[in-house]
Amino acid sequence: MHALVFDLDGTLVDSVYAHVLAWQSAIEEAGLVVDGYRLHRHVGSSGNLIVRFAQRETGRDLSAEQMETIHRRHGELFRQMVPNPRPLPGAIEMFRALRAARIPHAIATASYRPLINASLDAVGVGPEAVVVEGKGELQGKPEPDLFLAARKQLGVAVAECIAVGDAVWDHVAARRAGMVSVGVLTGGYGEEELYHAGAFRVYRTIADLLQNLDELGILL
Amino acid sequence: MHALVFDLDGTLVDSVYAHVLAWQSAIEEAGLVVDGYRLHRHVGSSGNLIVRFAQRETGRDLSAEQMETIHRRHGELFRQMVPNPRPLPGAIEMFRALRAARIPHAIATASYRPLINASLDAVGVGPEAVVVEGKGELQGKPEPDLFLAARKQLGVAVAECIAVGDAVWDHVAARRAGMVSVGVLTGGYGEEELYHAGAFRVYRTIADLLQNLDELGILL
Repeated sequence: MHALVFDLDGTLVDSVYAHVLAWQSAIEEAGLVVDGYRLHRHVGSSGNLIVRFAQRETGRDLSAEQMETIHRRHGELFRQMVPNPRPLPGAIEMFRALRAARIPHAIATASYRPLINASLDAVGVGPEAVVVEGKGELQGKPEPDLFLAARKQLGVAVAECIAVGDAVWDHVAARRAGMVSVGVLTGGYGEEELYHAGAFRVYRTIADLLQNLDELGILL
Repeated sequence: MHALVFDLDGTLVDSVYAHVLAWQSAIEEAGLVVDGYRLHRHVGSSGNLIVRFAQRETGRDLSAEQMETIHRRHGELFRQMVPNPRPLPGAIEMFRALRAARIPHAIATASYRPLINASLDAVGVGPEAVVVEGKGELQGKPEPDLFLAARKQLGVAVAECIAVGDAVWDHVAARRAGMVSVGVLTGGYGEEELYHAGAFRVYRTIADLLQNLDELGILL
């Protein structure tokens, strides 16, 4: 028995590039200038860490109110840019296959509702799906909280879980949760970056992973 | 005597992420859907190759008119998203230092005027600068044409030229031109991708390169 725990942005939906520009604009509106490539490498970690990073990078301090505004504006700008997130190759088919084979699965994302509603719709997961969000008590990646909460909701052992993600934060969080992890290239990281972060295999897309699930010991 | 030949987008100005979304939207308006991470890895090659790639990726054929429209829309969308491109760290200082030390230098880009006017202004190079564009007879990267034309205008030998770029296409083009090349991470490629493509050193930014120019045998 194995279970799969998926990241959302960049792994299941094509949203990383818009997130980069939405964060960059929201942060710039607060008077801080951060390069796109630096933000790219932070998307997928918790929003709080991204805003903290922007302060560190620029040597500037933001008030609680300014930070709150950045979060709100990031969400607004992202939804403006991507009103209808597009599923990445194989995402819909993956969930269809996992449901059919009754293989436990979940989505664990540092983002949160309602920002992710359209993305969940896009990959065709309904209200019955296990979705763990980065709001409330749970710390976003690279903390292991989200993956561990997903495991608990699925009722499986840590050793049975395989995390799937496009960002180095997914692999660090998985390692800290005691899970193995596999990478996908759809978030724009280089293959070696994901291996260095601890991915034991890197697939090009979820479609590629679906074709090779037996490499993870999952037999459809 | 050494000369430096720089790529522009992603190397000197922070424009790669906007180019990804501008290409994606322009291509989508023509009815073709291409993932962001795939376009990211094509930015920096010639626009013609990007449109050709989109057709290959989707198995669709475009008319000459549709292709022309994509190019036009890409330019319009990019200028809308980035009316004032921001220089990347060290870009302005690099050109100031090269001018002061009378070290031959040029910009060689697959893009073209007027699309690049604002970017050239942003890095503070004036009309006296050698700028080779990807229009007309010259083929864009990964063909070596642009780097070779820059060399010719500078009046230096191929063996004296060092190409600087953020994309694998810069390094392939440099290798084909017979030039050594160094990479920068500001275009969002992973470090290893640039080494694999032939960069003999990878710096984080142009600022980082400026600090270490002696590693290239260039003494300010």
